[in-house]
Amino acid sequence: MAETDRLRADEEAFLRGIVAAPEPVDPAEWVRLIVDAPGEEDVVRWTGRAAALRASSDDGLGRSPAPAERLDALREELSRRGLDGFVVPLADEHQGEFVAPRARRLAWLTGFTGSAGLAIVLAEEAAIFVDGRYTLQVEREVDADRFSPHHLTDRPPHDWIASRLPADGKLGYDPWLHTPDGAARLETACARAGGRLVAVDDNPIDAVWADQPAPPISPAVPHPPEYAGLSSSAKLAAIAETLGKGGADAAVLTAPDSIAWLFNMRGADIPNTPVALGFAIVETGGGASLFIDGRKVTAELAAALEDEVSVAEPDALGPALDRLAGDGRKVSIDPRSAPAWIAQRLRAAGSEPLRGPDPCTLPKACKNGAEIEGARAAHVRDGRALIRFLAWLDGEAPAGRVTEMDAVARLRSIRAEGERFRGLSFDTIAGAGPNGAIVHYRVDANSNRRLEPGSVFLLDSGAQYLDGTTDVTRTVHIRDPDGSPAPEEVRDRFTRVLKGHIALATAIFPRGVTGSQLDMLARKTLWEAGLDYDHGTGHGVGSFLGVHEGPARISKTPSDVALAPGMILSNEPGYYKAGAYGIRIENLVLVVEREAPEGAERPLHGFETITLAPIDRNLIEPSLLTAEETAWLDAYHRRVGDAYIDSLDGDTGRWLEAACAPLTGR
Amino acid sequence: MAETDRLRADEEAFLRGIVAAPEPVDPAEWVRLIVDAPGEEDVVRWTGRAAALRASSDDGLGRSPAPAERLDALREELSRRGLDGFVVPLADEHQGEFVAPRARRLAWLTGFTGSAGLAIVLAEEAAIFVDGRYTLQVEREVDADRFSPHHLTDRPPHDWIASRLPADGKLGYDPWLHTPDGAARLETACARAGGRLVAVDDNPIDAVWADQPAPPISPAVPHPPEYAGLSSSAKLAAIAETLGKGGADAAVLTAPDSIAWLFNMRGADIPNTPVALGFAIVETGGGASLFIDGRKVTAELAAALEDEVSVAEPDALGPALDRLAGDGRKVSIDPRSAPAWIAQRLRAAGSEPLRGPDPCTLPKACKNGAEIEGARAAHVRDGRALIRFLAWLDGEAPAGRVTEMDAVARLRSIRAEGERFRGLSFDTIAGAGPNGAIVHYRVDANSNRRLEPGSVFLLDSGAQYLDGTTDVTRTVHIRDPDGSPAPEEVRDRFTRVLKGHIALATAIFPRGVTGSQLDMLARKTLWEAGLDYDHGTGHGVGSFLGVHEGPARISKTPSDVALAPGMILSNEPGYYKAGAYGIRIENLVLVVEREAPEGAERPLHGFETITLAPIDRNLIEPSLLTAEETAWLDAYHRRVGDAYIDSLDGDTGRWLEAACAPLTGR
Repeated sequence: MAETDRLRADEEAFLRGIVAAPEPVDPAEWVRLIVDAPGEEDVVRWTGRAAALRASSDDGLGRSPAPAERLDALREELSRRGLDGFVVPLADEHQGEFVAPRARRLAWLTGFTGSAGLAIVLAEEAAIFVDGRYTLQVEREVDADRFSPHHLTDRPPHDWIASRLPADGKLGYDPWLHTPDGAARLETACARAGGRLVAVDDNPIDAVWADQPAPPISPAVPHPPEYAGLSSSAKLAAIAETLGKGGADAAVLTAPDSIAWLFNMRGADIPNTPVALGFAIVETGGGASLFIDGRKVTAELAAALEDEVSVAEPDALGPALDRLAGDGRKVSIDPRSAPAWIAQRLRAAGSEPLRGPDPCTLPKACKNGAEIEGARAAHVRDGRALIRFLAWLDGEAPAGRVTEMDAVARLRSIRAEGERFRGLSFDTIAGAGPNGAIVHYRVDANSNRRLEPGSVFLLDSGAQYLDGTTDVTRTVHIRDPDGSPAPEEVRDRFTRVLKGHIALATAIFPRGVTGSQLDMLARKTLWEAGLDYDHGTGHGVGSFLGVHEGPARISKTPSDVALAPGMILSNEPGYYKAGAYGIRIENLVLVVEREAPEGAERPLHGFETITLAPIDRNLIEPSLLTAEETAWLDAYHRRVGDAYIDSLDGDTGRWLEAACAPLTGR
Repeated sequence: MAETDRLRADEEAFLRGIVAAPEPVDPAEWVRLIVDAPGEEDVVRWTGRAAALRASSDDGLGRSPAPAERLDALREELSRRGLDGFVVPLADEHQGEFVAPRARRLAWLTGFTGSAGLAIVLAEEAAIFVDGRYTLQVEREVDADRFSPHHLTDRPPHDWIASRLPADGKLGYDPWLHTPDGAARLETACARAGGRLVAVDDNPIDAVWADQPAPPISPAVPHPPEYAGLSSSAKLAAIAETLGKGGADAAVLTAPDSIAWLFNMRGADIPNTPVALGFAIVETGGGASLFIDGRKVTAELAAALEDEVSVAEPDALGPALDRLAGDGRKVSIDPRSAPAWIAQRLRAAGSEPLRGPDPCTLPKACKNGAEIEGARAAHVRDGRALIRFLAWLDGEAPAGRVTEMDAVARLRSIRAEGERFRGLSFDTIAGAGPNGAIVHYRVDANSNRRLEPGSVFLLDSGAQYLDGTTDVTRTVHIRDPDGSPAPEEVRDRFTRVLKGHIALATAIFPRGVTGSQLDMLARKTLWEAGLDYDHGTGHGVGSFLGVHEGPARISKTPSDVALAPGMILSNEPGYYKAGAYGIRIENLVLVVEREAPEGAERPLHGFETITLAPIDRNLIEPSLLTAEETAWLDAYHRRVGDAYIDSLDGDTGRWLEAACAPLTGR
């Protein structure tokens, strides 16, 4: 019997994989992975079994601080293996933003649930390192007696290792979870201590995490040509050319979104980003291999890949690398995202890997015509959902009837009614009053606040649609029934943020300019008031892929990636007053070519705003806007109004008409 | 007899050193290096001998292309030493912008006189690598049959080495002339070819360059406290603290301007930057050593250094490094500027050098009160000279009586009349018409152009004064006797450059902002017309030191150095139309604290413009300026007028009054 059939036979393992993936938008869609043409009773039976398993299993996550026995068990395991310590990063094998529950080893071990952090466990002490965003959270979530908390930059983990690892100490690490450069830095730190870094064959946490979730299983499906716009073979040819120019015979792809883009496939293995976890090799001379759990591969995908791509199980990756290296081929890996394991395997097989950027990153960022049309269409649908929500909110919240959790749930359910909806693109940030000032805020039952009349509410949300990914932030004034306007300070700050947003939206710049060159446009008016915001101004956004994708961004962080036509980025300046309120205005913008005036010597680019939703006029101080800024806002609102006015029901339509009324009298 | 006396006894060698330094502002000042209290006849005798030696010696420089025998001689020398090739960089031991004639090995070997380049000589072929600024010049100056010319980025020298060095080939390099990182890159390139990189003990070019100039000798003098503002012991204490925090026991200083700043000393060994070449070691526990040719050290400097600094000959540096390393001290070197030789010496003596920035760079950039007062005062004098020149130019050039070389000479002689003048801070750029479009233009007899009536003339110049360094660019319209105005296009471009200049001059920004964040302010108005300029917007400027100094700059090139109060930088946007004209408007600006408005959360900084000279009103299109920009220009011109109107003679005063008249009617 074929490999896949054999695996299918292990129904229990299959179901464990299913429940280790996020709950699917359509609870039945995975049943066809195990039954060829499922009837209604198949669906009922299998989804029932999955639901029962989901209900009965306890992965041990979600407990903060983590039970103390876990650290004890890990130390025993390390001692069994002759290790003096172990490094526990947040990353999985793909170094992406979102990871499957199985990979949440840091959360399981410590209780810490933030999006950036690292723990180091030694025999007698352990430490956790987080950045400034998480210094409060780590105190709340982690037992400081077991893991001493440190600030990543004030007390770098490498210095901690250098001073705490015993001389001759062996510090273990999982080479799948660190990049080659990251491993090299750990190596140097160990050397400073007189000890050494030791790669483990299998992760010791996996050995002691009794109820560790399985690797996730979700259907890996073709991404239809009408959305992808370009065939996988055309993409493969372009990538092979890029690799060849760089002197590489092959590249290993380890970023699931690159693999999804290249092979025109999508999945649902991890939250928010519609990818199937796996690895790939692209050869410059033609040919590509996909290493993926065969149980995930739908018949449609198998058929679509058939001519172009050989599909194998993940454990075939190592031997494939050995073959390439043995043939003397030069293999490129991206040192910022590839696991150190791959570099070591290539090296062990006799081929020093070439270091080069993931060749898919740049072409993936530059959306083609179909992807651009898809993005525009998805944004029309997404804007309609957001407008319906905002109209509802404006009816309910002034009466004090809405909490942050209500808002999150309501917005999701409205979005889910939209065509081609495939889930959220990230966990909604719904910050009422002071919660809005916490840039990385996610509501939970403990933090949940009521939206107070007269207060400011920050709502940052987005969704995945088959034809595009959205990300939009609106900050609204919760109307006070007594009619009092938003405080002058709030209007001043909001209007400064808006001026920055408009300055970026209307920027015109020559080809070759990077986002870091433009970033200050969004900050200038805040600076003049002695204000600023401590996050980037814009990030790349995928096409039914990651809501945060490289290589371009708009940020003071230096970038050498020019903004190129087809890139979609966010434009999201903000202002945050700790303990009081947060303001952010975010639209997605598409980089477009701009007609050059007479005498121009360089091709010009600019932005087309593709997000459609009103910007709260109640928070604007019109006297702070120039005539040009007012004209931009009025034209934007006219565009939003025109897009929806005929398709919304009476109340919502009337609300929108008022929300989009021009600041200038007609 | 003492070491210095012994050296002085070798009069011939001393004079060779004197003539290898730039011609001094006061031709007699070096005589006291060899005669304790020189009388008039001593001065006449010694300056006469120096003049005769200068007239009779031929250093072999100044011939482009270089005679073919030189390459042949070098190849023979390499072959004698068993080397298969040799790398010839442009740098000297200090990696600075300006080098002494002795170090101009690349120019001697190839004839290339540009400011950036590298040659590689192999047994059968040789190549020279330059950047885009010098592709035309290298064709003119270098025999392409002997040195194949390449573009640095299109054909990186490391790739060339990797493909051309024979397997098992030994490529020589002089470890004094490359940084540790530079040497490591060469090493990798050699390894790719299957060969290896070999450090030479002494430079093979020195062995075959018969008339190579001596190391330069000029008086090294104390920089008086009224200009330096801070004692050397205070600076040493601060540097020791910085080093200690970084975990270093000592630092080696190799940048002459850092050494000049730290020890409050100045010299005249190289063109344009008033430094004495040498090395230094600063120890965290106190104590500092200066390694310098004792013949240069004036009695005043020796007395000033006595308590703080031990002075030794340069060949004592190696043994001093050995001692530090032998004592197990951690020694910091700046990997961007230290010679690889120093890293290798430390390593050989058992101490891996720490990599850290030159600890003087940042405090040197942040001028203290005395330095700021000095800069302002120097700029008042420098502005007076420039105004006298511009008034003269406006009288002479419209009659077609002025060439670029005339302008350069006249401006220098007017400047030299100023108090505390110590020479130019760089070779004046005087570009008439199309020559103005060549960003790195330096006039010579072949390129010299007449300033045509009706044309545009770009003049970028600066000087060294005891109390400050200047750098200013003015672009002027050479009046047409028939009274026709500057062409509309020129006025449009000039006004766009001016708008960028004003935008930067008036910028307000929070503490922590870098120059790369501000750079686009100076470009925005050009961008909107599809125009730009291919150079940075601003560079740091020293205090009677380098006209280009780090670590801050205003440029799209990423920087992590925040602009800090006391830094002096240039503000010099431009526009260049190849074959037609060049425009640049450059003032120096001082970073100052700005009063924060109410509600400000972050300390604010801004710029104070310290350069004083009118901006040509004939090139401005007033309708393109906003009211605020016009007000800035009028206020600036009022300031310039007020500074000089009482101290200039009749014609010049009247010219200045007209040049500073407000754009707006009174």
